[in-house]
Amino acid sequence: MGIIYQLTTWGESHGTALGVVVDGCPAGLHLKEEDIQTYLDRRKPGQTKIATPRKEADNVQILSGIFEGKTTGTPISMLVQNTSQHSADYSEIAGYYRPGHADYTFDRKYGFRDYRGGGRSSGRETIGRVAAGAIAAKALAEFGIHLCAYTKSIGPVSISMDKFEQTAILETPTAMPDRDASSLAEKYLADCMKAYDSAGGVIECVIDGVPAGLGDPVFEKLDANLAKAVMSIGAVKAVEIGDGIEVSRHHGSTNNDPFRMEDGRIIKSSNHAGGILGGISDGSRIILRAHIKPTPSIFSPQETVNQNGEEIEIAIKGRHDPVIVPRAVVVVESMAAITILDALLVNASCKMDNLKKLYLL
Amino acid sequence: MGIIYQLTTWGESHGTALGVVVDGCPAGLHLKEEDIQTYLDRRKPGQTKIATPRKEADNVQILSGIFEGKTTGTPISMLVQNTSQHSADYSEIAGYYRPGHADYTFDRKYGFRDYRGGGRSSGRETIGRVAAGAIAAKALAEFGIHLCAYTKSIGPVSISMDKFEQTAILETPTAMPDRDASSLAEKYLADCMKAYDSAGGVIECVIDGVPAGLGDPVFEKLDANLAKAVMSIGAVKAVEIGDGIEVSRHHGSTNNDPFRMEDGRIIKSSNHAGGILGGISDGSRIILRAHIKPTPSIFSPQETVNQNGEEIEIAIKGRHDPVIVPRAVVVVESMAAITILDALLVNASCKMDNLKKLYLL
Amino acid sequence: MGIIYQLTTWGESHGTALGVVVDGCPAGLHLKEEDIQTYLDRRKPGQTKIATPRKEADNVQILSGIFEGKTTGTPISMLVQNTSQHSADYSEIAGYYRPGHADYTFDRKYGFRDYRGGGRSSGRETIGRVAAGAIAAKALAEFGIHLCAYTKSIGPVSISMDKFEQTAILETPTAMPDRDASSLAEKYLADCMKAYDSAGGVIECVIDGVPAGLGDPVFEKLDANLAKAVMSIGAVKAVEIGDGIEVSRHHGSTNNDPFRMEDGRIIKSSNHAGGILGGISDGSRIILRAHIKPTPSIFSPQETVNQNGEEIEIAIKGRHDPVIVPRAVVVVESMAAITILDALLVNASCKMDNLKKLYLL
Amino acid sequence: MGIIYQLTTWGESHGTALGVVVDGCPAGLHLKEEDIQTYLDRRKPGQTKIATPRKEADNVQILSGIFEGKTTGTPISMLVQNTSQHSADYSEIAGYYRPGHADYTFDRKYGFRDYRGGGRSSGRETIGRVAAGAIAAKALAEFGIHLCAYTKSIGPVSISMDKFEQTAILETPTAMPDRDASSLAEKYLADCMKAYDSAGGVIECVIDGVPAGLGDPVFEKLDANLAKAVMSIGAVKAVEIGDGIEVSRHHGSTNNDPFRMEDGRIIKSSNHAGGILGGISDGSRIILRAHIKPTPSIFSPQETVNQNGEEIEIAIKGRHDPVIVPRAVVVVESMAAITILDALLVNASCKMDNLKKLYLL
Repeated sequence: MGIIYQLTTWGESHGTALGVVVDGCPAGLHLKEEDIQTYLDRRKPGQTKIATPRKEADNVQILSGIFEGKTTGTPISMLVQNTSQHSADYSEIAGYYRPGHADYTFDRKYGFRDYRGGGRSSGRETIGRVAAGAIAAKALAEFGIHLCAYTKSIGPVSISMDKFEQTAILETPTAMPDRDASSLAEKYLADCMKAYDSAGGVIECVIDGVPAGLGDPVFEKLDANLAKAVMSIGAVKAVEIGDGIEVSRHHGSTNNDPFRMEDGRIIKSSNHAGGILGGISDGSRIILRAHIKPTPSIFSPQETVNQNGEEIEIAIKGRHDPVIVPRAVVVVESMAAITILDALLVNASCKMDNLKKLYLL
Repeated sequence: MGIIYQLTTWGESHGTALGVVVDGCPAGLHLKEEDIQTYLDRRKPGQTKIATPRKEADNVQILSGIFEGKTTGTPISMLVQNTSQHSADYSEIAGYYRPGHADYTFDRKYGFRDYRGGGRSSGRETIGRVAAGAIAAKALAEFGIHLCAYTKSIGPVSISMDKFEQTAILETPTAMPDRDASSLAEKYLADCMKAYDSAGGVIECVIDGVPAGLGDPVFEKLDANLAKAVMSIGAVKAVEIGDGIEVSRHHGSTNNDPFRMEDGRIIKSSNHAGGILGGISDGSRIILRAHIKPTPSIFSPQETVNQNGEEIEIAIKGRHDPVIVPRAVVVVESMAAITILDALLVNASCKMDNLKKLYLL
Repeated sequence: MGIIYQLTTWGESHGTALGVVVDGCPAGLHLKEEDIQTYLDRRKPGQTKIATPRKEADNVQILSGIFEGKTTGTPISMLVQNTSQHSADYSEIAGYYRPGHADYTFDRKYGFRDYRGGGRSSGRETIGRVAAGAIAAKALAEFGIHLCAYTKSIGPVSISMDKFEQTAILETPTAMPDRDASSLAEKYLADCMKAYDSAGGVIECVIDGVPAGLGDPVFEKLDANLAKAVMSIGAVKAVEIGDGIEVSRHHGSTNNDPFRMEDGRIIKSSNHAGGILGGISDGSRIILRAHIKPTPSIFSPQETVNQNGEEIEIAIKGRHDPVIVPRAVVVVESMAAITILDALLVNASCKMDNLKKLYLL
Repeated sequence: MGIIYQLTTWGESHGTALGVVVDGCPAGLHLKEEDIQTYLDRRKPGQTKIATPRKEADNVQILSGIFEGKTTGTPISMLVQNTSQHSADYSEIAGYYRPGHADYTFDRKYGFRDYRGGGRSSGRETIGRVAAGAIAAKALAEFGIHLCAYTKSIGPVSISMDKFEQTAILETPTAMPDRDASSLAEKYLADCMKAYDSAGGVIECVIDGVPAGLGDPVFEKLDANLAKAVMSIGAVKAVEIGDGIEVSRHHGSTNNDPFRMEDGRIIKSSNHAGGILGGISDGSRIILRAHIKPTPSIFSPQETVNQNGEEIEIAIKGRHDPVIVPRAVVVVESMAAITILDALLVNASCKMDNLKKLYLL
């Protein structure tokens, strides 16, 4: 995906390794493996009660595209070895279709599938996204653009923006910026687990410092590309920009954001639009939300069919998080970073004035 | 947009004409201008109280790509002349930034803008989308794939699925399939207009007959491409697939759709997923919803700034619908058709078995 | 084609019109229809003995993307009406396959074809290329980049670089910059016509002022994209860069271009490479050549088969140039301009230093 | 590159590894590492006098996309470790610009470069192309499409088609199919080496079994894409299709290929066109030639400048082949295979009849 900042991810849950190649990263960005690792560690399963007890080191290796500590402008290949996979765990699921998973659709599309741990549709596929997102976020930071994603709700438990504490995002097992809500959510999840069940939730991502003017007016709208990028994450079923689903009940008079002057600059008095007007960034905070479905792998019995067309009852075993929201937070942030960076790069050539600054001075 | 079925739209609200070029339409599809016109007429402003009194003929001309009544496989160029535009209406808005519109962001991106009627960010830009969507829908119908979009709600007024009547979609001024709800919505809109204000709403689109297997597992997921296609429509601020935002409060046990057998075929007992699993169609009905913001052009006074950086109060004049939802219904349907057809075309080469049917027999 | 400067052409020889949509042209370029018409007039059939006696006005209309005399950054749609076409002329060729033409391959690919005047494979398809090339050339001129294409040879008659006179390109019927060679070529062509036969030739294009650094190092090499762009012109069968086919007999010692200093700048002492090293422009003149096959439509009898699989003898009638080289000169120049501009636009975001000039100052 | 069969290569001569990710390979193709290795071994430096004495194992690892011996339809990641690189060899060249190399253009484009062994512009970059080409060739073979590339000439020594012996391609150090010519070429190269100089040559590639109908009529012509693919190989300076540069001196009567019937099928009596008419394959043998420049790394002294802008004289040391043609043969074959396969995949959806075979039966 991407027009200039292009990524190609590869790898299955139980293959040799997973990775990503990033092409089109501008030359001259300082980059080292720790920059990537910090991001990858945020999607690693933890040791808490609400996360899978698997130990995945997920150490990234940069194989190309960096020289003397800087990006060279050529493709950056990054790889994470698979170390903790036990194919034996999954042999049983080879023959039937797990509800809520892509087993059936893969078989219908390709004629067969790598059934080990979900194969290509495993959550481990997001390793490549996060590695590419880490680079994008580092590049964006050089232009004063900063992203912050967090869990907004898990099941019925929502954060209160009054209690927003950014450091809590990395410290709570829920990735919530509200420690009280996080405790409630943990209790809720413990109940889910007791019931052999799972939960969903909402992730919010805010992006500050985006200059006005990014995004194109028709098909390559910035919000359209953000929607695609975020909806392409496995369990996402809805994407909102700004006030999102609320707008359908607003009036124009309450939904429009008035412009006004502040310190000689044009700003908006409110931000219902979530920072994007007509598909183009307006200079205010970009806000989006992703709605995540409950983990489909649950331990309670489920009805399904097998490849022979027989109706059966199954009970999924193994290691599964009761909620994927906390680990998906950094994935949403990464996909947003990738999209914003690509828009910034594409935008470089959108007017003659820009080109004259580059080629005539 | 599009990988195989590619469209390029062009044209401004007050330019000479608007149009679209469709490249990659398979050869041998029977097609005539009436097929396109029928779709375009659905987005035409009507004579009802809730729609703009403009008369736009919007007669489409097919300029290429058809021979002896069939598509030739080469680009199909379609054009609609602009006939009813009065640039004088818009001279006033040249100098300031209308809240909720793309005036400001265009100026920031490109350095200046065609301010006449919104220029490229006008709703008239969707003419090209609908023309391309009409072709896509006709091609899909040959494979038993049918789309149906309708207004699900306007402001607080929602349809009842118990009263669903498909013919009402084309007959009510709201494009609602529930005539009672439509009457209520018309009253609601009349009140909005009296208050010099506007309203938003929700459009739902269902797609039947999509074979299992369309869409790709990672970035080119079918739902991701649907989300982008629909979010790229001017006023859309949220997109949902299947149960959408509801999933975050579900449990795995209630959100998973069990598989079962019916007449020797694998089907699902429920369809919370909205017909897509792991980014690939699962053979059940595809369901999506678009949340549309209220028309930003309202007649009540608004605060904004002008190009000289002065804070001013404006009152927009001219002809503006109090709600754009009814006219956007066919646009959502078109964007969905375009996306599904492209996935169907891309899918043709996804496995050796397919290729052997084409090249070895 | 194109990554940022994208064009989509459409139209058949005997359809209503032909045209092109250019997307990604930077905003703020002064442009009027005359800029395009000047280029189109260069591919127009003339009144000379060596060109078809058809009268094609080929007047271009710009339908979008220009406001107050400048490009707006949104798609530029351009159209030329077909006025001089007589479908009756071509009814005979519907049933058989002309040697050297695309009749047979179209039928095999698409199942049928628009046989009128070659349909989509007509030379008239290049109208869209030339219109898009005219814009590209105008944009490039603002950066001091200038293209010049001319006929290098027709059949056995080659120009002498000693007699190079740029004005002769537009003044001779052969588009040769050497008036003596042009006279000889005209005689040669007169002989071809007497023999009911046709001729080929070579077009050379030189591009001055291209800054060092355009093009990407692997698949999107500048010479690779030039080769594709030029080979995509109907009758081209070979493309050379710099010394081209001669290099296979050179030695490294004679083919390498030494670097040296001049006025404090690095230049090359020779230019065997034709201005491109490792796929990237080196700041010296870019040189390419296209080898054009003889017009396949000849009046002498030819053997072929018809759609019923019968072997027949045909004699093509109608209006056909004995050589297409002179009219293809501006097409080669246009394709080169389009390719160079796209590389220039893509290059804008290739390094952090560029982006800092645009976003941090 | 590629529309459906997409490849992304990565890696530098002296980085950790080089590789390629192939996306869009159809599912169900039997594939194992040996299939790739066989191709890679053809580009490996040998032990003969005319090739570099480096020992590069270049063992490929497939990291993803294969399950139970078959492609799964998801990305295939392949990697070759760099084992034999000595960065010390190259420290000297960091400061100056080698004539005929991309040193200068990389610096101008990106601001700096990985100078070790040419970095990204090294011939080792072709490892990824050949790995992807091996898969493409294997897939094509299932449809009866076979490619054969060979050295046609080195310096002044050309093969005689009368002595063509296919097995000689893999057995001679020159990759020539004519053992006598190969001996002469070896002598010629020995003389070049004695003179501290290098040589160029011509590679021809023929492709049999391509069905009529592949390629698109305008920008994505099959010959245009072949030209780009082949011209994107480092040292190629010209590409010819069929009779290539000869056509400019032909007449229509001698250059046109008459159609005739054979065994109830339409074939051509001659093949000046090289198997492509109007950009679409015509069912006859596809023929192309690549003209390769002499190795720019020569041991005789050369004039150049260094990064401080000083004119200097250099003498390149290290290990360099006097000609790269023999090792580039498999690269040309690979790029052709990739291009043909992509055209075959894209073609699957070009007409309704094809789609009906896939979706309605």
